[in-house]
Amino acid sequence: MNLRFILVRPRNPLNIGAAARAMANFGFNDLAVVKPFAPVWRETTSAPGAEKLVQDARVFSSIDHAIADCHLVVGTTALRNRRPERPVVSLPRLMDYLKQEAPSPFLSKENETFQAAILFGPEKTGLSGPYLERCHFWITIPTDPACPSMNMGQSVALCAYEWARTLERLAPRALTGPGPLATAGDVQRLVSQTMDLFEAADYLPFLPRDAQEKKIRRLFQRWQIRKQDIQLLHGLFRFMMQGLTGEKPRGR
Amino acid sequence: MNLRFILVRPRNPLNIGAAARAMANFGFNDLAVVKPFAPVWRETTSAPGAEKLVQDARVFSSIDHAIADCHLVVGTTALRNRRPERPVVSLPRLMDYLKQEAPSPFLSKENETFQAAILFGPEKTGLSGPYLERCHFWITIPTDPACPSMNMGQSVALCAYEWARTLERLAPRALTGPGPLATAGDVQRLVSQTMDLFEAADYLPFLPRDAQEKKIRRLFQRWQIRKQDIQLLHGLFRFMMQGLTGEKPRGR
Repeated sequence: MNLRFILVRPRNPLNIGAAARAMANFGFNDLAVVKPFAPVWRETTSAPGAEKLVQDARVFSSIDHAIADCHLVVGTTALRNRRPERPVVSLPRLMDYLKQEAPSPFLSKENETFQAAILFGPEKTGLSGPYLERCHFWITIPTDPACPSMNMGQSVALCAYEWARTLERLAPRALTGPGPLATAGDVQRLVSQTMDLFEAADYLPFLPRDAQEKKIRRLFQRWQIRKQDIQLLHGLFRFMMQGLTGEKPRGR
Repeated sequence: MNLRFILVRPRNPLNIGAAARAMANFGFNDLAVVKPFAPVWRETTSAPGAEKLVQDARVFSSIDHAIADCHLVVGTTALRNRRPERPVVSLPRLMDYLKQEAPSPFLSKENETFQAAILFGPEKTGLSGPYLERCHFWITIPTDPACPSMNMGQSVALCAYEWARTLERLAPRALTGPGPLATAGDVQRLVSQTMDLFEAADYLPFLPRDAQEKKIRRLFQRWQIRKQDIQLLHGLFRFMMQGLTGEKPRGR
């Protein structure tokens, strides 16, 4: 698998460099930045040995673009004043959780087509709701209540260390299984399509649109939808839509 | 147990602050600095939430003073061009190693009289021989060969995380056992006494004095010497010394 580290709205170029160096220390090289504050962040000097990683980092204008090709999306959170709306995994338990719950046939070190992403929030606030909602589960680092807030570079280092350890110990697995997983981009298209369908059918009209969207996304995330499911569902929804709007589907 | 974090010859005040913050994140508060470069290191701003820890940090002029009261001393090293003269433990294996090899009856979270120390070397060079020789075992962080060198604050964060995890999982143990361990200060006095004895007896005259000292220290470290052993050995050595020099021991 390939693990992308996504920094959301990072402020301090030193932190971006420190994150890059920690990634490189543990053999990861896919860095993405979403809407960075400082335009000069690539000039950081805090990434000795990881300069190329910083130069190659991709910048995205939205999280949906950054995760579009990902099969698994994981958020990091300190959980302050936040209801756990996804499974919350303490970092030292990551390996156990992935073994039991993740789409494990695909989660081997050897499977180069499996794309995962881990998200880190802005230094002061952490990840906000819209980012956490895009995650299949949340990782939290068990810190001392007397000093709970971690430096971003150090959080990245801990997560890189624990993922590397986990991938090292996950036994290589057979790659056969129920077909490749859908990506976040696939699922997002399905969410939009479902929303349109709900609207056309006047289903759940008492819920505001963003609450509907949250509900649908969460549902789809739980299903571990496969590529072939996406095609089937797209087709089904298209036909239902045409039925609702009175228009005959093409090809009938 | 209490774990002291000892930074040897740190150069960058930002790193000292980052180390302090990571310690506080995982519930450690005993920071010591040996011969720091910058006299202004306490003014670091990189330890939000851990300012008191930095203010309370003790400064030592030598490593022997910093570890004098410690029962267990652990070094960190990247092992570059260095022969492993102590057991080398990969950080993710720390818990397994401590369970099997350490003086485990004393190594519980609850035992407040057990004092351990973990040493971190200067940013550019890491711990040199004289520091590593004072350690019972060495920890190494398994980094990618393409980017092996870690930021000091991040190394401290990883070690604090792994120790906290280890202490959490080590079952509380009975505190009975073969008596309290000797401290590094106890052992150092025994080393000096033994050296004097060797000299008086003209034993190992072909070895230079520092090589003799290394040999003796390593021997004593392996023994897990107890407080009561120290007294016995002190007495024995005193009598032998007096026999060698022709002087009658007092009290006979």
